[in-house]
Amino acid sequence: MNCIIAQSGGPTSVINSSLAGVIQGALDNNFDNIYLSLHGIEGIINKDILEVDKKKFVRGGVKEKLMARPSSILGSCRFKLPEDLNDDIYKKIFEFLLEKEINVFVYIGGNDSMDTVKKLNAYILSNNIEGINVIGCPKTIDNDLNGMDHSPGFGSAAKYICQSLRTIRADVDIYDLESVTIVEIMGRHAGWLAASSLLADFGYHKELVNLVYVPEESKSLKEIEEEVKEKLKTEKNLIIAMAEGFRDTDSYLDKPMFSNSDDGFNHPIVSGVAQRLADYLRDKLGVKSRAVELNIVQRTSNHISKTDADEAFKLGYLALKLGLDKTNLIPVLRRKEGKSYEVFYTEVEPDLIANKEMKIPESWLKDRKILREKITAYALPLIQGEVEQRYENGMPVFVELSDFTK
Amino acid sequence: MNCIIAQSGGPTSVINSSLAGVIQGALDNNFDNIYLSLHGIEGIINKDILEVDKKKFVRGGVKEKLMARPSSILGSCRFKLPEDLNDDIYKKIFEFLLEKEINVFVYIGGNDSMDTVKKLNAYILSNNIEGINVIGCPKTIDNDLNGMDHSPGFGSAAKYICQSLRTIRADVDIYDLESVTIVEIMGRHAGWLAASSLLADFGYHKELVNLVYVPEESKSLKEIEEEVKEKLKTEKNLIIAMAEGFRDTDSYLDKPMFSNSDDGFNHPIVSGVAQRLADYLRDKLGVKSRAVELNIVQRTSNHISKTDADEAFKLGYLALKLGLDKTNLIPVLRRKEGKSYEVFYTEVEPDLIANKEMKIPESWLKDRKILREKITAYALPLIQGEVEQRYENGMPVFVELSDFTK
Repeated sequence: MNCIIAQSGGPTSVINSSLAGVIQGALDNNFDNIYLSLHGIEGIINKDILEVDKKKFVRGGVKEKLMARPSSILGSCRFKLPEDLNDDIYKKIFEFLLEKEINVFVYIGGNDSMDTVKKLNAYILSNNIEGINVIGCPKTIDNDLNGMDHSPGFGSAAKYICQSLRTIRADVDIYDLESVTIVEIMGRHAGWLAASSLLADFGYHKELVNLVYVPEESKSLKEIEEEVKEKLKTEKNLIIAMAEGFRDTDSYLDKPMFSNSDDGFNHPIVSGVAQRLADYLRDKLGVKSRAVELNIVQRTSNHISKTDADEAFKLGYLALKLGLDKTNLIPVLRRKEGKSYEVFYTEVEPDLIANKEMKIPESWLKDRKILREKITAYALPLIQGEVEQRYENGMPVFVELSDFTK
Repeated sequence: MNCIIAQSGGPTSVINSSLAGVIQGALDNNFDNIYLSLHGIEGIINKDILEVDKKKFVRGGVKEKLMARPSSILGSCRFKLPEDLNDDIYKKIFEFLLEKEINVFVYIGGNDSMDTVKKLNAYILSNNIEGINVIGCPKTIDNDLNGMDHSPGFGSAAKYICQSLRTIRADVDIYDLESVTIVEIMGRHAGWLAASSLLADFGYHKELVNLVYVPEESKSLKEIEEEVKEKLKTEKNLIIAMAEGFRDTDSYLDKPMFSNSDDGFNHPIVSGVAQRLADYLRDKLGVKSRAVELNIVQRTSNHISKTDADEAFKLGYLALKLGLDKTNLIPVLRRKEGKSYEVFYTEVEPDLIANKEMKIPESWLKDRKILREKITAYALPLIQGEVEQRYENGMPVFVELSDFTK
């Protein structure tokens, strides 16, 4: 038996934990050849693949090293398969999978990538292809994947955000004057990460994040101004957590910052809302204000949640296992009822995930006390534990592809 | 004997290591009362002080906890003493110091704060005050303090920058297309931190940072464009390290980004150069480009260099010791000649440091190969070792003032 694995979409801190899980699954199930496709599905299309050296993998302790290595080690792509199943590209893909005698293809990615899994399975069905199972494995920092309790990658991003907020709080408190610091957090359509900034308050001796703005809600600039004024009555140095996708009803925050309207990856530049709000508040309230954009390190920090990494590994492992005799599935995790945090694993069809988005429930957003309670119960378990890093010369050292491929 | 300690200027990751050093020095020299002034010199002016509980300090292992706690725990100020020594404020300060029977006042800060040390000593001299010694203790992330080999705080900031660049490199390499990522790094007048980004290359399997721009040099946009084009011939995903204070000869990068021209702390908003250059390159070269601003976490990261923390502690310890029988001094560290990294400690007068700036030597900037060699030999030793952090609930927990004060 042979399998092939690819990673797609935006990177996360635990996407390689899932890769390690798939490889471990293939080893435990005595697969002959374990192939790796570079740059997502493009590696299969362009015949740009590598093969796992099983001995290197096991002897080198690569499993643990992959779990400590953030960002897609196989590379990624933003390639959407055509709707038309008669397109030549499908033929090309399956010719290659047949040539390599692939039994299981595991595609690790987000909702766009699950669309790829769905389409490949539609092709399998309509062409009566047997013996090739295409399985998805979920990931995203945004936590907006449908059909599961939470997305692998979210916990580590939330952990990084909370760690950064603890040090940002230590920073903003030093001057004996009023200030507002607006921290811009990833999340274009869903505010899970911005809301998870509230976890930083947990066990802290005072409120650490004072206001939160998420894309699920829209407010006028005047409302925001009033909320800031109100908070400044009791707290000198405000920290505002703001999702990059938050929009005010006055459309003040979403003016393009510069002449070019997209980032070259065909996503509009939505960042800059914090800088804009800082400018507005300085103008209106005469308060010292500044913007802090938590940048791309959010999604690929090496301060990885152990809980997140372990769950991502398990999902990868289960993806391979599902592929042994089934296709068109994605392993997901759900949370058990009860006080203590415990998950169980099941599977769903890609249709439930592809092109859909899970948002923060409306009921959580009634007021900030409820949001704080709900998000803490929900997300605090997901940032627990630290994945150990290997340091050399004072810097983290990550595993390389050549460390475990032929 | 009594002493008082204050912290001033911008925060660093090891400014509390110096505080711990001063306190340890006071304990070892059997001081009776160890006072802490809150918000720099303002705490003395406003009688806003605390006293160290010696038993709590020792029993609570506070020394190690302070060394793991970034950002000025005593708070800070941006207060410049008047030039006129007859100003009432001097009288007020010394009345308080006499009232509390202070023998040693240690002021931990940067070049502005060393100006304060200088002025207080001028007052002591002109008023024949005896028995009060005012000693400075150096810190800054910018590494621009004159009279010493390097500044405490620089090593930890450089370490954070290199760690971030390792993960940013893992991120930018994932797509199989040309891209330019411009990382904006702190440094208004000196490029030490931007240049230290080159350390991230050390032991890495390829060039990690491809181009570096520092405030010590100015270039035209056309020159930058040509350098980027040249680099893109051999590397698909460029990373450019750019100091926030870098300026092009065309004055394109220093347009104010928004309507307000300062950050409320009376510093002009100079950030945004990376965003601007990303925009320019996208326009001119049609290349995918984005800006990553390494934000204030640079200066208060809890990923602290052990070397840096140990040196900062030693300087604090020596500051107190100098104050036993001398005044108007600042302990500094210098590097011993020879292949292996070793420092020795000596002292200078504040005049050598106050209001001065140390820049990257011109000879280092002749070409990038030389800069890489020079900065690596210089700064790599400074990022070595990791200060252990205490984690609770998946987040770092820092020591509080109440953990070691009465």
